[in-house]
Amino acid sequence: MYDVVIIGSGPAGLSAAVYARRAKLKTLVIEKAGYSGGQIVNTSDVDNYLGLQGIDGFEMAMKFRSHAEHFEAEFLDAEVLNIKDNQDDGFIIILKGENEIITKSIIVATGAGYSKLGIVGEAEYTGKGVSYCATCDGAFYREKIAAVVGGGDVALEDALYLANMASKVYLIHRRDELRGAKSLQDKVFATENIEFIPNTIVEKINGADGIVSSITIKNIKSAEVKNVDINGIFVAIGMKPESSFVKGLVDMDSSGYIVAGEDGATSRNGIFVAGDVRTKKLRQVITAVSDGANAVASVEKYLRDLK
Amino acid sequence: MYDVVIIGSGPAGLSAAVYARRAKLKTLVIEKAGYSGGQIVNTSDVDNYLGLQGIDGFEMAMKFRSHAEHFEAEFLDAEVLNIKDNQDDGFIIILKGENEIITKSIIVATGAGYSKLGIVGEAEYTGKGVSYCATCDGAFYREKIAAVVGGGDVALEDALYLANMASKVYLIHRRDELRGAKSLQDKVFATENIEFIPNTIVEKINGADGIVSSITIKNIKSAEVKNVDINGIFVAIGMKPESSFVKGLVDMDSSGYIVAGEDGATSRNGIFVAGDVRTKKLRQVITAVSDGANAVASVEKYLRDLK
Repeated sequence: MYDVVIIGSGPAGLSAAVYARRAKLKTLVIEKAGYSGGQIVNTSDVDNYLGLQGIDGFEMAMKFRSHAEHFEAEFLDAEVLNIKDNQDDGFIIILKGENEIITKSIIVATGAGYSKLGIVGEAEYTGKGVSYCATCDGAFYREKIAAVVGGGDVALEDALYLANMASKVYLIHRRDELRGAKSLQDKVFATENIEFIPNTIVEKINGADGIVSSITIKNIKSAEVKNVDINGIFVAIGMKPESSFVKGLVDMDSSGYIVAGEDGATSRNGIFVAGDVRTKKLRQVITAVSDGANAVASVEKYLRDLK
Repeated sequence: MYDVVIIGSGPAGLSAAVYARRAKLKTLVIEKAGYSGGQIVNTSDVDNYLGLQGIDGFEMAMKFRSHAEHFEAEFLDAEVLNIKDNQDDGFIIILKGENEIITKSIIVATGAGYSKLGIVGEAEYTGKGVSYCATCDGAFYREKIAAVVGGGDVALEDALYLANMASKVYLIHRRDELRGAKSLQDKVFATENIEFIPNTIVEKINGADGIVSSITIKNIKSAEVKNVDINGIFVAIGMKPESSFVKGLVDMDSSGYIVAGEDGATSRNGIFVAGDVRTKKLRQVITAVSDGANAVASVEKYLRDLK
């Protein structure tokens, strides 16, 4: 029986692994992706993790994983389907392929992924003009034309960020009014090279020579369809937490984030949460890594009280 | 006028500086110590900051500082005496030597220091057998004799940690009963090489050849005084937050920690807090650095709402 099983090996899960092993807990890390690092693996540059300035996301993921391996965390490539109560104490984790793992406690560190438009060309051109993070990829669009899809705070912030470097930014939103903070809206409307296109959806992302060249958009009021030449499209329509496998087991908010404070304690005794999948204000590598440490401190206390 | 002044340049303050500069805020960092890094500067080895495994504390401090300098944070060597409301908006920070700084917002990141015994030999032998952190320095006492002073959770955890490597651990407490969690007490009493010495204070730390060789202890019930040979003494009698200069300005708990959740928002609009000086469960480098990021996110929102 494990003291703690950590589900997910992004920054939060790997930090939890380091803290758990240093606390001499019998620890297993389960990862379904086949690689560690989570979202950072696809990030070209992480510039705000103190002490690792300007590091490539993939290199960062390697460093994080090897740190956890240094303390001899055990890793398993598998997908968790479900979690059940164990007869006496702790939990049974049911894996795809019907294997089971028994553990006294669990840290859910499965992260969140960006919501997709689900349109033709989106998957094909991801990383080739389709991006989900302006702060990460904006620098590639200096003096080029970019589109941002969405109407919330993130979409507005992305548009403002890109307007500093791109020659032109289209802000495309399916409603007639933006949803983001008024102060951000004021700035967006005061920025000359941002053009707001309301009541409009993107129907298709078109490419040439393997990179994005234009989008097909449709005005949902007039039904007018047209092509707009762009070099990059930033999709900012929200994130989706990876939490379906614990539905009904722990409290979640309406978006599926697992409800917990900074100590990571969920509504269920013995199950803790760390990183982007937790209800929190700021989802960053550094806050995820901090969550991993906090969750293990809570696990330690939980295990001590079991005895 | 600055957008934000960060007081303190330990891990929390430097992380805040990186985030603030990346958000293009006009930022000043004030440090009174003459160097950046805070407590880590005196730490031989930091092993649990994900991605920087086994780094020397001083080297870590240098990396952190240069990261903040890379984003052109402005630094000032000065001591803050007091903070007052500015006439129109924001705050006036009053420095020793009567200089003043005007800013729209403040992040207090002044940290906390370990409480001292205040006895002869303590300052002289700090780093030469006197330590305040068993997790940091315990490895130096393999097969040696260590003493831990204190009766709370940290003292008990330190004694248990050291018992894994030292040949003998004295746990010295001024009361007849320990104060720490019952589960920890049970473990302490079940550990053969820990000897609990109740009703006792340390009067003096003695050295030979520049390192600690013994302590002079006194039983406060019997008034008996004796010398005990040891190689290292770990002082675990609490921490003291550096918060006196904001007393009356923001809410604090009874120990002087500034009350705030993970967003760093204090009871005073426009003043935020990050790192060890905040009320929080786990005081670590990684949680301090995360706090810096969170505090800046709160500052950004605060400044946006000002407009």
